[in-house]
Amino acid sequence: MIGIDWGTTSFRAFRIGRDGAIRDRRSATKGILNVPDGRFSDTLREEVGPWLAAGEDRVLLSGMIGSRQGWREAPYLACPAGAAEIAGSLVDIAFDWAKVKLVPGLSGLDSSGVAEVMRGEETQVLGIPALLRDGGIACLPGTHSKWVRVAGGRISGFTTHMTGEAFAALRGHTILGRTMRDGPPGDAPFDAGLSRSAEPGGLLHHLFGVRALALADRLKEQEAPAYLSGILIGHEVRAALAQAEGSVVQVIGAPDLTALYARAIAACGGYAERHDGEAAANGLALIAEHAQWT
Amino acid sequence: MIGIDWGTTSFRAFRIGRDGAIRDRRSATKGILNVPDGRFSDTLREEVGPWLAAGEDRVLLSGMIGSRQGWREAPYLACPAGAAEIAGSLVDIAFDWAKVKLVPGLSGLDSSGVAEVMRGEETQVLGIPALLRDGGIACLPGTHSKWVRVAGGRISGFTTHMTGEAFAALRGHTILGRTMRDGPPGDAPFDAGLSRSAEPGGLLHHLFGVRALALADRLKEQEAPAYLSGILIGHEVRAALAQAEGSVVQVIGAPDLTALYARAIAACGGYAERHDGEAAANGLALIAEHAQWT
Repeated sequence: MIGIDWGTTSFRAFRIGRDGAIRDRRSATKGILNVPDGRFSDTLREEVGPWLAAGEDRVLLSGMIGSRQGWREAPYLACPAGAAEIAGSLVDIAFDWAKVKLVPGLSGLDSSGVAEVMRGEETQVLGIPALLRDGGIACLPGTHSKWVRVAGGRISGFTTHMTGEAFAALRGHTILGRTMRDGPPGDAPFDAGLSRSAEPGGLLHHLFGVRALALADRLKEQEAPAYLSGILIGHEVRAALAQAEGSVVQVIGAPDLTALYARAIAACGGYAERHDGEAAANGLALIAEHAQWT
Repeated sequence: MIGIDWGTTSFRAFRIGRDGAIRDRRSATKGILNVPDGRFSDTLREEVGPWLAAGEDRVLLSGMIGSRQGWREAPYLACPAGAAEIAGSLVDIAFDWAKVKLVPGLSGLDSSGVAEVMRGEETQVLGIPALLRDGGIACLPGTHSKWVRVAGGRISGFTTHMTGEAFAALRGHTILGRTMRDGPPGDAPFDAGLSRSAEPGGLLHHLFGVRALALADRLKEQEAPAYLSGILIGHEVRAALAQAEGSVVQVIGAPDLTALYARAIAACGGYAERHDGEAAANGLALIAEHAQWT
């Protein structure tokens, strides 16, 4: 089969054997925002045409490709949901010669009853066998970080933190950016930010401290971005762990980002296991295994 | 005497009698950022020339006019400091015919030892007699909100929260702004944001909830700015009250802003007394009373 994690900005395709092993992979900057005029079938042909020509006839797509802005909308499925429930709600796509299906996103409620949605993360979470077997927590860091709870082989709920987007807005559009310069990634200022996040005064006070330390010549311009990142990720991780049962977190994503989160989780008293984005391939294979493919 | 609260964007002058009463007032959008080429003495002549001509010969200036970007830099004075200490550190300005002096800003350390500075707020705080008599807490809301502690007639310390600037950056430069429209100020959505700030999950999660509620049609576009404001001010007030001794807060500033903060302080279990920006006139008169005016 072919499994594709097709998001807002990226396209990652996997050719997966009957044993679930990844036999080949392709990636491209052809996220749904970069595909002009809804030419999704053309993009699919360009990217995985050779695999289709070699006989693959099942294609499963997860991610924002199933959103209103994507190829076709796959309605959200309510939590709790596992591979079987998701496989029972796949949405068919008309395509030349292969059977193409969309994975639905999931919806849920946070602990206060506020609606939450995700698309694509559910598939990556289902790709971590330890979570399905033992239950636990996954963290998918990014623009909008997701913390996902798994119990009894199903995703029971999740919460979103606007950490990455808040970082960009604060750095790019507040006074904090005036004393910042890109520099080598720094463990020491990141750790200082993590420690700061544990102190009293709250996030809005800690943010101003970035400016105060810079004015007092106690924070170098090249260190300030890592310090701000440590403050924000520290606040996210502390709040998420406070709500979690257990302290082992499966962190899924790009290696540079999962490294930061693993460091933050350890500093906040948890323990992180890191996984890269190929967890999506496992999840897609598992969902396909449960699906009636007609 | 003439007392002037001369900030980054505003200029507010008071003619003050020997009894401390305000005899006349002027305000203009002639903050230091709006005065071209450092023409501060010209601006002073234009604005209060008639008062000087009528015989006033003492002018005391507080606020950012004493910063590096202002008329002349008045070095920060370390906390604890009251009217007597501040009066002993005034900085003389050369001016045609009157004696003009600058009030220094204050510096301090937050509870974690991070440096803090302010210019102008100290003078407003000294203008609230109840604080000087009994001690307590003042809150000066704004782009960078200040929470100031007073004990024994002196300012003992203060902390800054980046609330106003964070609101502007989040509304203007994140996905949250896409589901927001200006509307009538709304008590109900503001209160909902205040309640939200008490729930688990942390500020970065609560921010994403603004988006989640909008997508679920549970938050109208005209209500969303007040809801976001309630979340941010709620987080600020909760963190500040948690660090404060006592729960009565003297809130100083423009009436629309002090009304919101009074509402937030009440919702968070405190009690607010509101004061407008004319507190600066009282503070300037008190400092002048302590000063050797030569």
